[in-house]
Amino acid sequence: MRLPSDARGVYPIAPTPFFDDGRIDTASIDRLTDFYLQCGATGITVLGQLGEAPKLEHQESVEVARQMIRRAPNLPVVVGVSAPGFAAMRALTHEVMEHGAAGVMIAPPNTLRTDDQIVGYFKQAADAIGADVPFVLQDYPLTFSVQMTPGVIRRIVSDIPSCAMLKHEDWPGLEKISALRAFEKDGSMRRLPILCGNNGLFLDYEMERGADGANTGYAFPDMLCDVVRLSAAGQREEAHDLFDAHLPLLRYEQQPGVGLAVRKYVLQRRGLLTSAAQRKPAAVLTPAARAEVDHLLGRLARHDPRAKLA
Amino acid sequence: MRLPSDARGVYPIAPTPFFDDGRIDTASIDRLTDFYLQCGATGITVLGQLGEAPKLEHQESVEVARQMIRRAPNLPVVVGVSAPGFAAMRALTHEVMEHGAAGVMIAPPNTLRTDDQIVGYFKQAADAIGADVPFVLQDYPLTFSVQMTPGVIRRIVSDIPSCAMLKHEDWPGLEKISALRAFEKDGSMRRLPILCGNNGLFLDYEMERGADGANTGYAFPDMLCDVVRLSAAGQREEAHDLFDAHLPLLRYEQQPGVGLAVRKYVLQRRGLLTSAAQRKPAAVLTPAARAEVDHLLGRLARHDPRAKLA
Amino acid sequence: MRLPSDARGVYPIAPTPFFDDGRIDTASIDRLTDFYLQCGATGITVLGQLGEAPKLEHQESVEVARQMIRRAPNLPVVVGVSAPGFAAMRALTHEVMEHGAAGVMIAPPNTLRTDDQIVGYFKQAADAIGADVPFVLQDYPLTFSVQMTPGVIRRIVSDIPSCAMLKHEDWPGLEKISALRAFEKDGSMRRLPILCGNNGLFLDYEMERGADGANTGYAFPDMLCDVVRLSAAGQREEAHDLFDAHLPLLRYEQQPGVGLAVRKYVLQRRGLLTSAAQRKPAAVLTPAARAEVDHLLGRLARHDPRAKLA
Amino acid sequence: MRLPSDARGVYPIAPTPFFDDGRIDTASIDRLTDFYLQCGATGITVLGQLGEAPKLEHQESVEVARQMIRRAPNLPVVVGVSAPGFAAMRALTHEVMEHGAAGVMIAPPNTLRTDDQIVGYFKQAADAIGADVPFVLQDYPLTFSVQMTPGVIRRIVSDIPSCAMLKHEDWPGLEKISALRAFEKDGSMRRLPILCGNNGLFLDYEMERGADGANTGYAFPDMLCDVVRLSAAGQREEAHDLFDAHLPLLRYEQQPGVGLAVRKYVLQRRGLLTSAAQRKPAAVLTPAARAEVDHLLGRLARHDPRAKLA
Repeated sequence: MRLPSDARGVYPIAPTPFFDDGRIDTASIDRLTDFYLQCGATGITVLGQLGEAPKLEHQESVEVARQMIRRAPNLPVVVGVSAPGFAAMRALTHEVMEHGAAGVMIAPPNTLRTDDQIVGYFKQAADAIGADVPFVLQDYPLTFSVQMTPGVIRRIVSDIPSCAMLKHEDWPGLEKISALRAFEKDGSMRRLPILCGNNGLFLDYEMERGADGANTGYAFPDMLCDVVRLSAAGQREEAHDLFDAHLPLLRYEQQPGVGLAVRKYVLQRRGLLTSAAQRKPAAVLTPAARAEVDHLLGRLARHDPRAKLA
Repeated sequence: MRLPSDARGVYPIAPTPFFDDGRIDTASIDRLTDFYLQCGATGITVLGQLGEAPKLEHQESVEVARQMIRRAPNLPVVVGVSAPGFAAMRALTHEVMEHGAAGVMIAPPNTLRTDDQIVGYFKQAADAIGADVPFVLQDYPLTFSVQMTPGVIRRIVSDIPSCAMLKHEDWPGLEKISALRAFEKDGSMRRLPILCGNNGLFLDYEMERGADGANTGYAFPDMLCDVVRLSAAGQREEAHDLFDAHLPLLRYEQQPGVGLAVRKYVLQRRGLLTSAAQRKPAAVLTPAARAEVDHLLGRLARHDPRAKLA
Repeated sequence: MRLPSDARGVYPIAPTPFFDDGRIDTASIDRLTDFYLQCGATGITVLGQLGEAPKLEHQESVEVARQMIRRAPNLPVVVGVSAPGFAAMRALTHEVMEHGAAGVMIAPPNTLRTDDQIVGYFKQAADAIGADVPFVLQDYPLTFSVQMTPGVIRRIVSDIPSCAMLKHEDWPGLEKISALRAFEKDGSMRRLPILCGNNGLFLDYEMERGADGANTGYAFPDMLCDVVRLSAAGQREEAHDLFDAHLPLLRYEQQPGVGLAVRKYVLQRRGLLTSAAQRKPAAVLTPAARAEVDHLLGRLARHDPRAKLA
Repeated sequence: MRLPSDARGVYPIAPTPFFDDGRIDTASIDRLTDFYLQCGATGITVLGQLGEAPKLEHQESVEVARQMIRRAPNLPVVVGVSAPGFAAMRALTHEVMEHGAAGVMIAPPNTLRTDDQIVGYFKQAADAIGADVPFVLQDYPLTFSVQMTPGVIRRIVSDIPSCAMLKHEDWPGLEKISALRAFEKDGSMRRLPILCGNNGLFLDYEMERGADGANTGYAFPDMLCDVVRLSAAGQREEAHDLFDAHLPLLRYEQQPGVGLAVRKYVLQRRGLLTSAAQRKPAAVLTPAARAEVDHLLGRLARHDPRAKLA
């Protein structure tokens, strides 16, 4: 299954589950995958920025992707393949595509500066992985320090047919969505699926600006699916009500560094992960932080029963 | 009046009001100042990062500070004096201190990297402005790209007696507050007032970690004052309820670049600013963004009547 | 006198001379200026990156520029006016232009990233200082972290008529000169004077690529003038011979931070500065470094008698 | 053979030779290795920053290292293993150590900022590769944007026994060598071999400050060996004479990006590489640049007959 040219809905960013001793927890991969399916996810992204990919051996990365692909044969699975060199990027891409991945996701290295450097990089990357492999363009300046204007994204989309989706996580980013949709309207850029990341911090208004969905790892993907569905159905205030109820926790989880620890802890409390363990190096959830997350869950449970945890 | 060594409460970051033609709007300065007093602010910071200081001529900066100092004779007024060189920093500091400022605020230049460079910079700055001028240490890595560990802050506080307050806006930053309070507890650092910035995005839990208040410019300083008061009084859930009601708008205002336009627009709608104009260069609020802010205000008004605007 | 549209030759970057106690040394300004004239300089730039401008009060900056303008009434004097805000940039520009400056030099702030941001910044700066003030575009990525492609420079030159010269100090930068000259040849960009900085580290080949001269502060401006003259006259090997003799010292002086201390020390030893003092904060020349500079001067004196110092 | 605790002399940074079609050129690896031996090199570093490591598949990297290790059984061969994650770093380290590598070289990721982050990173890296693997600490702020003070280096050396050498390429860096040697003298740091990189731009004075040799890839490693030998033997002016003769070319080769193309071109002209080809992405040597290198070689040949090329 290839990444469709009209992707929409929610592609959760899957964490990589580990046991406390660092081994990969295959049962939790299956449980997570089943949960995504049940939530109404329309795809899955694995080995993304918060999938701890750099802590996996090459073979482990392939195995984690395979496990998810096998468990969700009817969902497109996108695999993060960002790497400092094109050789490693190509090697991983070829293996996971052979195992049934729908496409790959590529983030720019943080040394890129000029518009030409950015466009040139993605051309080289597309050449390296092969023109037949659909790729998701990750636009996350907060983490990667690379700033792509709407014009640069248009150049990438126009020059590279295999660019199949934008993982939009610029901040601020609402006007960027509007600018890209205007490009499409005036005929200067083909239609590109835009799914939003950055933990969904602006998902409520991003949908209203024309985004097609979410592509992020918030510990309540079921909420993301609901908000995207409500928003698409025109139930605006209901979408905002649900989103706002989650915003205090969502903001807390969006913190760099410690955010993944929060996410894994909540997923564990939800019964989806056996352990919240990360491989080293890992930001630790202090007792104070854990108590804050529990407090946030308790408050959230008053509005969303899914947060009522044992 | 000098910045007290036990500062606490809310020091709003005042925007600089302009008329549509770019002239400074003195009447709005007075109106804002009166409003801060009425909210229960315990101090005011002027010419901060979002006070458009670089767009003011030197004499204008002095006048804006004077106007506020005269209008609030019983409140300590802190003046932002960050500058690329110590000569300009010293000149502005001396003038505003002569006019009654309580102290100054200094942010690190974004070229600093090592711990020693950071500590050295603040020593030189304190030397330049004079050891008798209390200064607020601004710790805002997201904007300034300078990362200060708790240990570096301790070195600054220990080496420089005139360091009188921390404007804490690291992100994530909760553990930093806990670390600094632990230093105080174990006797390795003197007690330092910690007031929180970053638009208050984590003010709810920052107070619970030991912060003394807020030092930020969110368009509802009255909410900040209430949350700080409720939290200090142990009314935890009430503090969170009020904070959470504001979080959707607060998050929207916290966006870099466009955030100031949002803030000024809301302050104008609240009747505090005559105009939402910024001097150039300025991020513009598009009609779509303005409609989003109106929508956020409308939703907020269901919980906080102060957001019910004509 | 306005900066000519066909500037060429050598515009030394003048240091700001101080006495040991930090006062400005006017007599040394005059001595330096006379020396530049005598060397064959065709212009002078003052208050540049290494002119310690941020350590001068506003009035001092104006005075330093005036002193040089008065002493060299027949040379165009360019004044560095880079500032974090357009208000300060405009104020200094207007004052020095009234006192007879030929134009100003503007460096981009190190927060600019995208092509559009860079072009936009210079448009705003040109608006702020006035369309009638010729300005030198400073392209120094090593120091300012802003990367301008040849295409971006063409956009600036095409969009802003008052852009009158390029201070070229990209590294590597030879191909950039060739690219800009090719733009002129194919008619896509008007002729722009290109004078080279970066302490002249590649001046030998930059001249051969089409540069019009040097705009840098190496402590032997007389060598720079000779190399530019020899190269323009087609005496290629003579130009290289002289340049190569200076390269060991030139490389030593090009070091960031300590470079200015080296430069002032050599200018003092040459009798041009009364003192090598810098205002704080300043990199110090250790005894070991001073001995190395003396050693370099001694070795240079075998090839260039001007390095034979008392 | 393990990296000796008293390493000294010259460890050339070996480029990775390719044929024009991108295949690895094993015969050129052998030829290069033999040449290093014949020059008097005391070790070799492979897969460094300019060894195009990110363009190699994992297995290729291992093969390149093995080839060199086999060809120089009596020289310590250090292998660059810098990687975005510890999993890949550990995997490559273990393989090359099994094949006889003497140690590995680790550069810091460009996201590190604070002193603690830097020290912490190297502790984690040393843990990941194993305490029994000697590693070279690469200190190259110009490329990696990570600034290590002498104090930070001392912390690393003191906390991590397996830190076996410093590849010193800070710029400016002379005072850093003096500071580290002073630490050793005052007993606060154990003796650490310091070999200098940055293409040897300051090798002449670095040796006089106490460096133990060179660890860089300049296309005349024979010159590096001579300069190190002459300097160690106290033949100061002879060392400088030879170094200065090479400085014009050395400076040209030290340019970022295009530098590797220059280096490979010269090595090809010297008959050491079959082809100057790089794998993509690669900076290209334009005809103008090639002519400049030829010109530099011609001028150099007047002083050093080794530059007289067919």
